Amino acid sequence: MSHVDMIIVPSCIVGLIAAFAQFLIIKKISLTPNGQDLSKPLTGEDSPEKLVPEIYAKIMDGAVQFLKVEYAICTAFCLVFSLVIYFLVSWGTKSPLQGELTAGAFLTGAFTSMLCGYLGMMIATFSNARTTLECAHKGYKEGFNVAFRGGSVMGYALCSLGVLVLWALLSFYRKVYPEAEDWEILFDCAAGYGLGGSTVAMFGRVGGGIYTKAADVGADLVGKVVAGLDEDDPNNPATIADNVGDNVGDIAGMGADLFGSFAESTCAALVIAAAAVEGSDNTLSVAGWDAMLFPVAISAAGIVICILCGFVATNVRPVKVEGDIEWVLKVQMVLTALIMLPVIYLLAVHLLPADFRLEGVRLTEKGVPAKIHGSPFKAFVCATMGCVGGLIIGLVTEYFTSHSYIPTRELAAACKFGTAVNIIQGLALGYKSCIIPVFVLSSAIFVSFQLCDLYGIALAALGMLATLSCGLTIDGFGPISDNAGGIAEMALFNPEVRRRTDALDAAGNTTAAIGKGFAIGSAALVSLALYGAFVIRLRVKTGVNILEPVTFSFLIIGCMIPYWFAALTMKSVGQAAGEMVAEVKRQFSVKDSKGKTLLEGSTELKPDSKTCIHISTQASLREMVAPACLVILSPLLAGTFFGVQAVFGLLTGSLGSSVQLAISMSNSGGAWDNCKKYIKNGFSDDAELRYTKNPKTPEEIAAAPKAKEAHDAAVQGDTVGDPFKDTSGPALNIVMKLQAIVSLVFAAYFAAINNGHGLLKV
Amino acid sequence: MSHVDMIIVPSCIVGLIAAFAQFLIIKKISLTPNGQDLSKPLTGEDSPEKLVPEIYAKIMDGAVQFLKVEYAICTAFCLVFSLVIYFLVSWGTKSPLQGELTAGAFLTGAFTSMLCGYLGMMIATFSNARTTLECAHKGYKEGFNVAFRGGSVMGYALCSLGVLVLWALLSFYRKVYPEAEDWEILFDCAAGYGLGGSTVAMFGRVGGGIYTKAADVGADLVGKVVAGLDEDDPNNPATIADNVGDNVGDIAGMGADLFGSFAESTCAALVIAAAAVEGSDNTLSVAGWDAMLFPVAISAAGIVICILCGFVATNVRPVKVEGDIEWVLKVQMVLTALIMLPVIYLLAVHLLPADFRLEGVRLTEKGVPAKIHGSPFKAFVCATMGCVGGLIIGLVTEYFTSHSYIPTRELAAACKFGTAVNIIQGLALGYKSCIIPVFVLSSAIFVSFQLCDLYGIALAALGMLATLSCGLTIDGFGPISDNAGGIAEMALFNPEVRRRTDALDAAGNTTAAIGKGFAIGSAALVSLALYGAFVIRLRVKTGVNILEPVTFSFLIIGCMIPYWFAALTMKSVGQAAGEMVAEVKRQFSVKDSKGKTLLEGSTELKPDSKTCIHISTQASLREMVAPACLVILSPLLAGTFFGVQAVFGLLTGSLGSSVQLAISMSNSGGAWDNCKKYIKNGFSDDAELRYTKNPKTPEEIAAAPKAKEAHDAAVQGDTVGDPFKDTSGPALNIVMKLQAIVSLVFAAYFAAINNGHGLLKV
Repeated sequence: MSHVDMIIVPSCIVGLIAAFAQFLIIKKISLTPNGQDLSKPLTGEDSPEKLVPEIYAKIMDGAVQFLKVEYAICTAFCLVFSLVIYFLVSWGTKSPLQGELTAGAFLTGAFTSMLCGYLGMMIATFSNARTTLECAHKGYKEGFNVAFRGGSVMGYALCSLGVLVLWALLSFYRKVYPEAEDWEILFDCAAGYGLGGSTVAMFGRVGGGIYTKAADVGADLVGKVVAGLDEDDPNNPATIADNVGDNVGDIAGMGADLFGSFAESTCAALVIAAAAVEGSDNTLSVAGWDAMLFPVAISAAGIVICILCGFVATNVRPVKVEGDIEWVLKVQMVLTALIMLPVIYLLAVHLLPADFRLEGVRLTEKGVPAKIHGSPFKAFVCATMGCVGGLIIGLVTEYFTSHSYIPTRELAAACKFGTAVNIIQGLALGYKSCIIPVFVLSSAIFVSFQLCDLYGIALAALGMLATLSCGLTIDGFGPISDNAGGIAEMALFNPEVRRRTDALDAAGNTTAAIGKGFAIGSAALVSLALYGAFVIRLRVKTGVNILEPVTFSFLIIGCMIPYWFAALTMKSVGQAAGEMVAEVKRQFSVKDSKGKTLLEGSTELKPDSKTCIHISTQASLREMVAPACLVILSPLLAGTFFGVQAVFGLLTGSLGSSVQLAISMSNSGGAWDNCKKYIKNGFSDDAELRYTKNPKTPEEIAAAPKAKEAHDAAVQGDTVGDPFKDTSGPALNIVMKLQAIVSLVFAAYFAAINNGHGLLKV
Repeated sequence: MSHVDMIIVPSCIVGLIAAFAQFLIIKKISLTPNGQDLSKPLTGEDSPEKLVPEIYAKIMDGAVQFLKVEYAICTAFCLVFSLVIYFLVSWGTKSPLQGELTAGAFLTGAFTSMLCGYLGMMIATFSNARTTLECAHKGYKEGFNVAFRGGSVMGYALCSLGVLVLWALLSFYRKVYPEAEDWEILFDCAAGYGLGGSTVAMFGRVGGGIYTKAADVGADLVGKVVAGLDEDDPNNPATIADNVGDNVGDIAGMGADLFGSFAESTCAALVIAAAAVEGSDNTLSVAGWDAMLFPVAISAAGIVICILCGFVATNVRPVKVEGDIEWVLKVQMVLTALIMLPVIYLLAVHLLPADFRLEGVRLTEKGVPAKIHGSPFKAFVCATMGCVGGLIIGLVTEYFTSHSYIPTRELAAACKFGTAVNIIQGLALGYKSCIIPVFVLSSAIFVSFQLCDLYGIALAALGMLATLSCGLTIDGFGPISDNAGGIAEMALFNPEVRRRTDALDAAGNTTAAIGKGFAIGSAALVSLALYGAFVIRLRVKTGVNILEPVTFSFLIIGCMIPYWFAALTMKSVGQAAGEMVAEVKRQFSVKDSKGKTLLEGSTELKPDSKTCIHISTQASLREMVAPACLVILSPLLAGTFFGVQAVFGLLTGSLGSSVQLAISMSNSGGAWDNCKKYIKNGFSDDAELRYTKNPKTPEEIAAAPKAKEAHDAAVQGDTVGDPFKDTSGPALNIVMKLQAIVSLVFAAYFAAINNGHGLLKV
């Protein structure tokens, strides 16, 4: 084993062990402490503890059912698509072996991604009820620890598996297929791994996103506005689907998304590093395996750092009071990022040659490719730009979406003027929130591009994702707490329990916003790196002239793709939510033998959550294929018919446009959500923005009608924001990445059609 | 006078005469038929005819007051900016004369634009009350004719003035400054004319847009939702401001916008045509004045064609019944476009040399500039792509926004599920509506770019704008009819009159949607042409490599600018509307000596429209400067500090992103507006979507609560859509054009700083 292997393999094994250990700790908490007999039907008089296992089982069952069907469709799609890859790559490279290896890497990536998504979702579902019980029986610290551990099982396991499988794949290919010993070919094939990860991520994000928001929007519309029920009221049959949705959307979807980002940025770095540089053999590929696998080593080291920092949260400085939660989570993020930096530096010095040449896409003023020299220090700076940039983007995201700061509070004040003003201001807030992240991103791009050309961009992306295990832990923490709250409500625990889970959830929401910022920022860098790898792979020596007829035409088409995509996904959510509302209304109108409906306290009728789960499942599966095909087929068709210049335009436009739309949608949605919480929980000093169900003081009674109005406006805004922040917005990350990696994998194929001019020979 | 002068000058004179003749015809209609004494205070018992002059005077007064202040600010800004132009251009070109000429052209363009906006607004305000009276005393035909003539006065006058002044400016410069006889320098200076037009357009669009929507949103919120008043209820003090807003926003703003497009596309064509081609003197500039001014000749000929076609609408096949209106307007659009095509062909053959060389930006595969040959036929095809493309975009826009078609009807059905679903689906509709227009645009770009490089793009833009007089006529028709309806309501005419004006307004809305499609499409083409002119002007021979660090960094900043801009403008509307609501609520809460409020039928209190007008005026003037500065300063700063490569990135991103955002915002807004009309006017077969104030049939009574809900949801959607379609959306047209023309005018200045690398020498 070489040096780099000695870093990668042990790190991943440590990660897997840590994940398993955390799982065992969670498992100790029993769901049936009193030897309860689960076969006995439950009645309304049961204690909350008795209701928990039933609810837990329903959520678990719904989630597993959904993932099964989703992954069946995914598998079918991936198998067909792997044939497409095999044939087109074989034809393009004139080497069936290369076709086989690429298709193999694709399937490996796809199945690893599915495995990660499945594990993540299982552990999240496994932890949610336990979080509720710990909150009920013990306190913040224990409740927090379960949710945090649940998240970290997903974080450690996903990262370790992702890195380990990629490493194994590369080592295997290198040993078993000596014909592919040429680094360029080897890493070209490995790009299939990234494509596999991203394809599954697309299905996961879109399918999960539609699922969760159809249920959530449907439940909200009926529950809160129409019938005046509380969120997660046990009588609302859509709430189970809503809770299932949190798991399949936020956990499985988000996990697959970030797994894709990691796999793709690594592949981009590898492809760029492997490219031959004219007139020089001082390259990374000549320097060898250690130098080539530097990017993978960063990810591997990140896992260990996140594990070590995790102890700070659960043991060294655990949560004691409510106010600690957000602080503990934020410390995790900042701490891992800070420790990561010197480690990256050490790895760079240790693994990279002191000076190396890189193939780039920049041109000198005379229009010839510029000469690019890399060094360990430059590589370190690039990764740092990503790592720090991600943190800044995350904190800006928090500023715009948390109700601790001015923007969301102003939005709450706008609710006084009704829904329309809330929507207008919320959209404006989202647009405005693009400004700083875009400046940060463009600075990171500028600096890393200047220093190490596109290799620098790939390193910046990896730097941003270096602390991925920590990010995933926190991302997982949110939905687990959210579910725990839902279970507390449905199991009729006393309000104090709900208050505790809500506190966890609120902190999770804030930090999840930071996670979303990371996801979008890294997606932008990854897709630029992939785009660059594509250009380098094609050996284009004249740059990408945007003022070519076909390139510019496809630039504006590329800018349009994210809109098309968002239209498809939002429309799906709207429609599915409509179906959900109709079903719930139907259930509410059914009368039992005594003429009572569900809401009138019928003892015979039970909310039928299965039908609701079925509606969400069907809608998401039906609707997820079209957007996925749009994203995957657009570069394929552009390249096939109009040649590589068209693909350049498409990628440029799609990247630029997706970033803005993704940031603005996520942040508008997040702000509306927190604006609603702000009014609902009565945090405001202004009585007209303090909603209370039972106003008591004279001031409250006087302000009550206005507060109700503002609250209703906020609820409407939150509902509009749901598909923004959990369906369309985050899925746009995958749009830009997936288009770029599709182009990269099919580069040789595009180049082979009329010498890169496409079937129409433009 | 040369051939081309013999085409341009007489056409413009005919246009001016036609405009004056139409004005005289409108003027014949007296507002005070019975010799009414306007000095006598009016009471509620007066006949509608007696109320009309007072309302008319209020609207006229409000509009004039606003324009005065707005133009004062504009003038101040333009004077300062002309100094900036003078100094920077003089410094960049090392020729104070060139600085003077450019600044002179800038001021000429700015003042021509202001004059056109002022004339348009005066004639629109002049025609609105007369339209009401004709509808009241005569019928559809007469009412239609007044509104149509009012629009055409603006259309003919604006186009004629625009063309004539530009022609005069060029002739004057050519004669008086023989040092500038070099075509390249002459047309560089002339680009200032386009910049002037666009700068004023920016103020007009943004200022007018904020004005009109602050008033409209404010009036809607209070009037319809809070107090249950009808639109344009005379008791609502914000309605006068709303009607004033239609004139300053839709007329003065839209007129200035399209004037800017015309001026800029002409300037772009001139600059490109004047560029020297290496190794060839078979260029348009060598061919002479006739060949150079071919683009101006297209616009001039368009005026005459539109005048001739106008007779078809008013005399040959006038409106007879309600159903005719939309048909007559559409015939105008298609007819002028069809007649335009052969005329363009004749002009091309007559004025252009049979074969000529053009300077382009396309590269061959070896990375050297491609050789481009133009011909009259190629030029004709390019203009045709624009002319036909515009028509298609317009018709698609209509499909997505008119309630005669599926999309808006589906949106109406979504209203059944409440506001949130309406908003989600409306946004999705807007996103979706980008797809076909973008494909049409990119096809037009592809074909014209291939045929004549960027000269082809400029011609396509001119082709789209060739029938501008007709487009402006129809655009003016809408707000005039809208105002006529408002006056009918406020003057308490019997409902039949309102029905007639509403029919005019509805048709106007539909065709206005087509006009907006034209405006966005032409803006995209114009900005690409200007961008190309900028590149040619800089003599860049290596293309625009988008994968340069600074270029790509600024590409994503460019993509962000439209979002920043939209955030500023939407926030302004939301805030100003809030102020308006507060003021109206205040007025409604005041009690007179008998303890009655305005709404309770107080005879002492009068709605105080002046304060409302003041709020709108102040808000729009306060808020219009920041967005304008953002757009004008961003390319200036990018070029000054980061060099021309940064400007390339900025323009690319801004163009791509603005197109999508502009289309989607305009169409979402339009669809919401028509969705509301569809439900409010009871056009649906579904009783739950047929809102009636006084349900009569059992079916209506049963459906009434649901219909009310759907109606309220639709009203909220309409309110959100207001700033979308009338403030931010259309102003984005100007964002892309203005940034490109600023870059073009300051090209020499940018090139002079560190040889185009900017102060930071990147």
